[in-house]
Amino acid sequence: MIATEQVSSLSIGIVLFPNVTQLDFTGPYEVFAKLPNVQLYLLAETPEPIRSDCGLTFLPDTTFAQAPALDVLFVPGGPGINAKMEDEKFLNFLKTQGKQARYVTAVCTGSLLLAGAGLLQGYRATTHWLSLDLLEILGVETVAQRVVIDRNRITGGGVTAGIDFGLALAAELFGEAIAQEIQLKIEYNPQPPFNSGSPQTAPAAVLARVTNASQNFQEIRRQIVQRVVTQL
Amino acid sequence: MIATEQVSSLSIGIVLFPNVTQLDFTGPYEVFAKLPNVQLYLLAETPEPIRSDCGLTFLPDTTFAQAPALDVLFVPGGPGINAKMEDEKFLNFLKTQGKQARYVTAVCTGSLLLAGAGLLQGYRATTHWLSLDLLEILGVETVAQRVVIDRNRITGGGVTAGIDFGLALAAELFGEAIAQEIQLKIEYNPQPPFNSGSPQTAPAAVLARVTNASQNFQEIRRQIVQRVVTQL
Repeated sequence: MIATEQVSSLSIGIVLFPNVTQLDFTGPYEVFAKLPNVQLYLLAETPEPIRSDCGLTFLPDTTFAQAPALDVLFVPGGPGINAKMEDEKFLNFLKTQGKQARYVTAVCTGSLLLAGAGLLQGYRATTHWLSLDLLEILGVETVAQRVVIDRNRITGGGVTAGIDFGLALAAELFGEAIAQEIQLKIEYNPQPPFNSGSPQTAPAAVLARVTNASQNFQEIRRQIVQRVVTQL
Repeated sequence: MIATEQVSSLSIGIVLFPNVTQLDFTGPYEVFAKLPNVQLYLLAETPEPIRSDCGLTFLPDTTFAQAPALDVLFVPGGPGINAKMEDEKFLNFLKTQGKQARYVTAVCTGSLLLAGAGLLQGYRATTHWLSLDLLEILGVETVAQRVVIDRNRITGGGVTAGIDFGLALAAELFGEAIAQEIQLKIEYNPQPPFNSGSPQTAPAAVLARVTNASQNFQEIRRQIVQRVVTQL
């Protein structure tokens, strides 16, 4: 926890890329924006609008080249990570920021990008359930848990885990009371209408359909991961 | 539930306005975008970018004037509803679409806008916990429940309730199996790190701080609601 007097302005950088999953970062963003004295940066390689995988488009406010030294580096996931796993310029930005950031964080398959930049090896971490085995291939000790905190690495599971992650990070940075206030403001009292949110609880037929539909995509991702791991 | 063969393309309109709370609609958006055969419209009065209350900016894709007859009308909330509660042009758009839409829906204080347009009177509905009494003043039978379905009116509680709402609407439109698949894809297996997400569960001191901090704003909103109710 950071004493409030130390924090004139805490910088949180959200790393965007084409085909990012928007809820991976819009969930945490709602939490981050309610923290006292933070400066949020929507970062991307160029100032061009970033189209998320489901169509919503976002305007970065800062390019990688113009980004300040971040206190918190945050990387969301999405289908677009496939291209970024082998993008040296992108990975170098994560490496540079990750070396000096106070917290190095990710949600969903953003963890694969952190691992691709060599920032999660030697740490326990998590990712979207469909890609846990790929994070393992990258040499990360994976934990099938909603939010994993290992020293200054904080990672969350798939997509909606970003809200749990955001609140956990809020508590790390400013203490539980601030995190609890934000939880109340955003009425985060979840009541999913179904119990299908994890491979352990989803009906078998639902799990089979989702797994089968993602098989080709996950196979391509596996091949990328296998190339990346030889470069680490 | 709508049979798939009937749905060549189901139109869902998301109504934006300045100072909307982005997670009110980015949560449901992630769910909507994964539905089969839907066309999503980010609607606003003008094509100008819409700045949300926490800073994220969105580009509407369709103006009110150009919007098609919507199958689903969806209204998020946020501080910006105050100005829209007395904006005749805005309310007329909701009235026109609400009269013919198959589903008339809202999350958070978007319900106050629906009520301001006369679309929730005679229905049971919900809103953000801080504004439940204001929805009552507008002549709506309020229910302190995460998601309320009353005939073709579907409303959700504050901010993060949009995800529960989105899945409930997905099930209404396309059946439980589709909703469960989406829940699994977005790993919606929430595990809030604290139990502070509702006024019933939040620590007393946390509830007091949030309630006190919102007092002036809620008083202004109450005055608006009291003016609006005389016009209904």
